[in-house]
Amino acid sequence: MIKIIGIGLWDERSMTIKAQEEAADCDIIYAEFYTSKMFGSTLKKLEKKIGKEIQELSREEVESGKEILKKAKKQKVGLLVGGDAMTATTHAQLILDAAKAGVESKIIHGVSIFSAAAGLSGLQSYKFGKTVSIPFEDLESPYNVIEENQSIGAHTLCLLDIRDGKFMTVNEAIRKLLKIEKAREENVFMKDSLAVGIARAGSPKPVVKAGTAEELLKKNFGEPLHVLIIPGKLHFAEEGALELLKK
Amino acid sequence: MIKIIGIGLWDERSMTIKAQEEAADCDIIYAEFYTSKMFGSTLKKLEKKIGKEIQELSREEVESGKEILKKAKKQKVGLLVGGDAMTATTHAQLILDAAKAGVESKIIHGVSIFSAAAGLSGLQSYKFGKTVSIPFEDLESPYNVIEENQSIGAHTLCLLDIRDGKFMTVNEAIRKLLKIEKAREENVFMKDSLAVGIARAGSPKPVVKAGTAEELLKKNFGEPLHVLIIPGKLHFAEEGALELLKK
Repeated sequence: MIKIIGIGLWDERSMTIKAQEEAADCDIIYAEFYTSKMFGSTLKKLEKKIGKEIQELSREEVESGKEILKKAKKQKVGLLVGGDAMTATTHAQLILDAAKAGVESKIIHGVSIFSAAAGLSGLQSYKFGKTVSIPFEDLESPYNVIEENQSIGAHTLCLLDIRDGKFMTVNEAIRKLLKIEKAREENVFMKDSLAVGIARAGSPKPVVKAGTAEELLKKNFGEPLHVLIIPGKLHFAEEGALELLKK
Repeated sequence: MIKIIGIGLWDERSMTIKAQEEAADCDIIYAEFYTSKMFGSTLKKLEKKIGKEIQELSREEVESGKEILKKAKKQKVGLLVGGDAMTATTHAQLILDAAKAGVESKIIHGVSIFSAAAGLSGLQSYKFGKTVSIPFEDLESPYNVIEENQSIGAHTLCLLDIRDGKFMTVNEAIRKLLKIEKAREENVFMKDSLAVGIARAGSPKPVVKAGTAEELLKKNFGEPLHVLIIPGKLHFAEEGALELLKK
């Protein structure tokens, strides 16, 4: 049995009571923190809340999945992941591989940045289009997705890269998009485009600020994790919510 | 102080440890179950888990928000809502009204169908477009949104109507969309279109089935709540996941 257990967004209190119980019921508990990281917690605090030892796995160990599946044939194996359980493609692959190997699996849902970011911004979750990841490399694919979403008036949630202990800031993400705009000139994301920057969603003091790209570039969002929202067409209630965030 | 507290998808164990603690810390706890309902729980069980009395509010009481705001000026008032905290527009309005009245507010995130449905289907959360609600009335707006999402290859999550103790089934939703297709003939959702039906997300035994619209019409998804996903362009890993669900 393999359980993919989403533990939410911030600290060990972000997990559901069910996640806590299901993890405690495992014979072996692994955790991966390369797709998302719990900034308000530590492995020690998580272990204390669950009452069991947790082994952190590397990206390679999760992606190959060999060790996890081997153990899961005979024992109850849990894999703790930040946010919701299946938002990273590796988790979906693990469940597929488990099915092929005849290993039973279970998904324990967690609080996800996909709905939390919308909630914090006051923008309607219904009106978000495709989500993009903005990578440290200079790739144009995020720009294309924002353009697609704009073609149907949808908002875009941009998740920002995590790599080797580096966490992309809202400011870096804005600079990257403006750089692509300068090269492409398709009026997708300009200096006067509206944007919302969010830092530390799920924490007791999340920072949420709205403004033009240029205005947000001057703000300091503080510690990670950050995400960026590029709004599409606004409903007047959404306009009202963004007004409150323009300080 | 007003706290909008998301309590997740199924039963009282679906809430986060933080939601439990934040609710217990309130002077008054309200709950609304007209935007979402906890089918695996009861008010009694929720009260036991939180250790305090909970008053259920009607749709009108939440939408006017008067009583809630009045109390929140002097006391810590919690409003329990199914799923994540801010997915219904009434909750966003309540936070806006609170800000205008000088009342502090706090959002406690919960597990949401927005990410859980994607995870259960094996479809990538990144590739979902706008979400639609399919109402009991014969409205064509959901069809338009699915069409918009298809224009950019995005998947569509369809939330199904809840009204006066009636809960729309996957089968009813499919029949409604096929009826609009018959009138419009724009090849958006046909008898041989692929769809995924999900029942009781977040419960110990969620039902998830993929197939053509015609095939799913013959399936029984059992008790509420149901949601329907209309996939857009599929990645081969997503095709693999859907193959497993075609039984």
